[in-house]
Amino acid sequence: MTHSSETAGRLDSSKLNELERIFFPRSIAVVGVSPDPEEIASMWLRCLAERGFQGHLHAVNRKGGEFLGRPIRPSLSAVPGQVDLVIVCIPRGGVLDLLRECPGKGVRAVYFYTAGFSESGQPEWAGVEAEMVRLAREGGFRIIGPNCFGIYNPAHGIPYGPFNTMPPAGSVGLIVQSGGNMGKILEYGLTQGLGFGKGVSLGNASDLGAADFLEYLALDPETRVIGLYLEGPRDTRRLFEVLRATAGVKPVVVWKGGSSAAGARAAASHTGALAASPAVWSAALRQAGAIEVRSLDEMADTLLLLDRFGPLRRNNLGAICGLTDGGGGESVLISDVCAAVGIDVPRLTDAAERALVDLIGQVGSVLGNPVDMSQCQSDPEKVQRAIDLLASEPQIDLLLVYESAGVLLDLYPREVTAAVNDVILAFAGKKAKPVVLVLPYGPAEARRREIEQRFIGAGIPVLPSIERAARAIRNVSRLPHTAGPSRSSSRRG
Amino acid sequence: MTHSSETAGRLDSSKLNELERIFFPRSIAVVGVSPDPEEIASMWLRCLAERGFQGHLHAVNRKGGEFLGRPIRPSLSAVPGQVDLVIVCIPRGGVLDLLRECPGKGVRAVYFYTAGFSESGQPEWAGVEAEMVRLAREGGFRIIGPNCFGIYNPAHGIPYGPFNTMPPAGSVGLIVQSGGNMGKILEYGLTQGLGFGKGVSLGNASDLGAADFLEYLALDPETRVIGLYLEGPRDTRRLFEVLRATAGVKPVVVWKGGSSAAGARAAASHTGALAASPAVWSAALRQAGAIEVRSLDEMADTLLLLDRFGPLRRNNLGAICGLTDGGGGESVLISDVCAAVGIDVPRLTDAAERALVDLIGQVGSVLGNPVDMSQCQSDPEKVQRAIDLLASEPQIDLLLVYESAGVLLDLYPREVTAAVNDVILAFAGKKAKPVVLVLPYGPAEARRREIEQRFIGAGIPVLPSIERAARAIRNVSRLPHTAGPSRSSSRRG
Repeated sequence: MTHSSETAGRLDSSKLNELERIFFPRSIAVVGVSPDPEEIASMWLRCLAERGFQGHLHAVNRKGGEFLGRPIRPSLSAVPGQVDLVIVCIPRGGVLDLLRECPGKGVRAVYFYTAGFSESGQPEWAGVEAEMVRLAREGGFRIIGPNCFGIYNPAHGIPYGPFNTMPPAGSVGLIVQSGGNMGKILEYGLTQGLGFGKGVSLGNASDLGAADFLEYLALDPETRVIGLYLEGPRDTRRLFEVLRATAGVKPVVVWKGGSSAAGARAAASHTGALAASPAVWSAALRQAGAIEVRSLDEMADTLLLLDRFGPLRRNNLGAICGLTDGGGGESVLISDVCAAVGIDVPRLTDAAERALVDLIGQVGSVLGNPVDMSQCQSDPEKVQRAIDLLASEPQIDLLLVYESAGVLLDLYPREVTAAVNDVILAFAGKKAKPVVLVLPYGPAEARRREIEQRFIGAGIPVLPSIERAARAIRNVSRLPHTAGPSRSSSRRG
Repeated sequence: MTHSSETAGRLDSSKLNELERIFFPRSIAVVGVSPDPEEIASMWLRCLAERGFQGHLHAVNRKGGEFLGRPIRPSLSAVPGQVDLVIVCIPRGGVLDLLRECPGKGVRAVYFYTAGFSESGQPEWAGVEAEMVRLAREGGFRIIGPNCFGIYNPAHGIPYGPFNTMPPAGSVGLIVQSGGNMGKILEYGLTQGLGFGKGVSLGNASDLGAADFLEYLALDPETRVIGLYLEGPRDTRRLFEVLRATAGVKPVVVWKGGSSAAGARAAASHTGALAASPAVWSAALRQAGAIEVRSLDEMADTLLLLDRFGPLRRNNLGAICGLTDGGGGESVLISDVCAAVGIDVPRLTDAAERALVDLIGQVGSVLGNPVDMSQCQSDPEKVQRAIDLLASEPQIDLLLVYESAGVLLDLYPREVTAAVNDVILAFAGKKAKPVVLVLPYGPAEARRREIEQRFIGAGIPVLPSIERAARAIRNVSRLPHTAGPSRSSSRRG
């Protein structure tokens, strides 16, 4: 495919090898482990051991001792053999001495949970951060962070920092300049069934930065969609070059935190980020073909829909509502909210409108798109025929199904709602057209959760509000300027 | 108070008497009741009986029979004594005959669950709707609906239609031109602890309309805040006159559904609403001093904050995060989302920043506003001091507390999070400055729910996202143009 090989050609494949060895280390040393299992470094080591990291796993702490039946080595130098990756959780005063031991152990990369460097606003500690990078350059290894959780690669037994947050395996890649936000996106995966492949929490990004990891994930065949949360990348020129090349081969969703003055202040003390104009950022992201989002939920929802459907060329929406409650107000809300973000809820063809009248009858129903099923909401056969009717309209690209979890849901016998949901699941399973379920939180929470689990289990995206669904649908149909007909096929290939 | 008596003077207090008798009927007849308890009219009668309606309650159906130990009268005329209010759930073909019986029974108002009139798009049934109104004028009674659930007045034992949705009693009034949306707002009250007083589901609003009920609720001393959902009011000139007068004495939140072309189409077939330009609507609402919202969630959230805090003069926000997770990313998100809707998250005074450094320490923390408590999140005393510090800043008007319900929450012992929440609840209880809790849904759902229940029980608003909290906070500080210093005091008086 000419298009994708052209853009891929602008990516530096030498990056692939360097980062491959960081994502797939053969041995890891965790520095700061103590016999106390509540220490962060001890939790980290335990997670690595429990998640099945297959290489050599070492504990280091100058105080010595033992943890999980492993000796705690007094120094990095005392670890037997080569150490590919070093994870550091010690007070900031000890990091320079530690780095001086790295070249002797053949270390490829070090990442620092340890914080308090450039982001502290204290010049002496910003100086130490610079010295850390200098030592890495001199010693031939790389630094991730400081002030981060580093690499996530569950396929190689590397969990997310010291946490057991384990969403399903998948093909969404993450580059996140905030440990907390990365954790929250993984937790979203856990509840929504969204699977991730490789990820990195960047922190201050003093050495390896967003552009490096983006280039790696762009070339990585296992990564199909990329999410990027940035506060203040250092080398924006290179980042935008890589971004443009990456967006040519796979969708990249970018959330730039610190777009407001207050947010920029918070970002500066969080990861030492420098302020930049949000308008300039938005324009540059659009130019590069990235999909810009503005919050955690919007980022996660957009990644979910990209993972399930890939980018959509058009987003004309067919909607079905009134399944558990009066659908009149729902149909107005769906239409207005979609219109507000630029999604069309098109009229049905005359033939389809007539067929709907035959199916549902006239009284009190909205006979159009959205289809209000209030009059026959407990009739699975009619729901099925309405969905088929809507989906076979050529001007409709995807379907939104709205189910209220209000008190009425509890009034319906379980079998009735299950039978209606069977029909929706069966249609979604055919993958004729993408289906999104909107299932707001409500007083019938236990029933809601049951329905949610069924849909998530079947791989259907479930979102809690029309607003969130509409924004995510709009985002996945924002194709980059470089996208031609070859794009979605190259992504799927 | 000159200001409020001036505006109140423009309200027609004769409306008070007419509608008072409709909201407080001495006798009700439900038409369509059958011995089958699953019939909608039977459910309706049962709800009235169970919610303790104190007046006379009658069942009517030409087929006769018995329900709940009550005789089902074959006609309205066969009911003994006067009937103040008639609730109609019969096929549309029978409504004109029924209305002809009303004058003989001294009926004051009739409301129709029965639908299929002007909203059906069928000219003959639009004609029947017009004839219904003519019969009401001639007979000296009023019509609510058709295509509605009518009056809600739990203090007088009138529940919401045939439903047992019973949020707490309170002082928020509702006028909603969609039965489903009114139900959803009441359900929100049920889960969020928001209390309602009087309400009405308007449906087609063929006779009594939004302006009539608004005038009544404006003058009603028990109603302190009003929510209005409109699709297509008939007499917009009068509505805006009443709206302007009402907004001068109490806050009115207005959601106009059908603002998009698709939404207008849906509204037309839902309640027979006529389209109007959304820009014209927004301008007129602003001019009238109403608070415009654009979705169900936004309406409910705004009513919740108005109920708890009243309108706010300023909305400079102090935020606390990092209570259960890393707070760096949270602080950036809070700042950006607030800025996007026009809320300032102001810098702290130098003295407060220094005090925060002393309190929290430097490493890895965002020492400003938002306050990131990551370094001492399980220390209730430090959380308390941080809140006090933030709240005593004169430039800060209200507090937002962000608690993540991510996997980390499950790692904290219950006592630890409970002790931290005790501190927040104690501060909120002092009512020195308003407090909003943002508690997103997450994988630690059972723990989240526990925390939510504690805050809701204490009357603190709990919202599931920063986006929703920010929008609602912005809305309650959108004072109408008529508001002077006398306004909030008159409202509270």
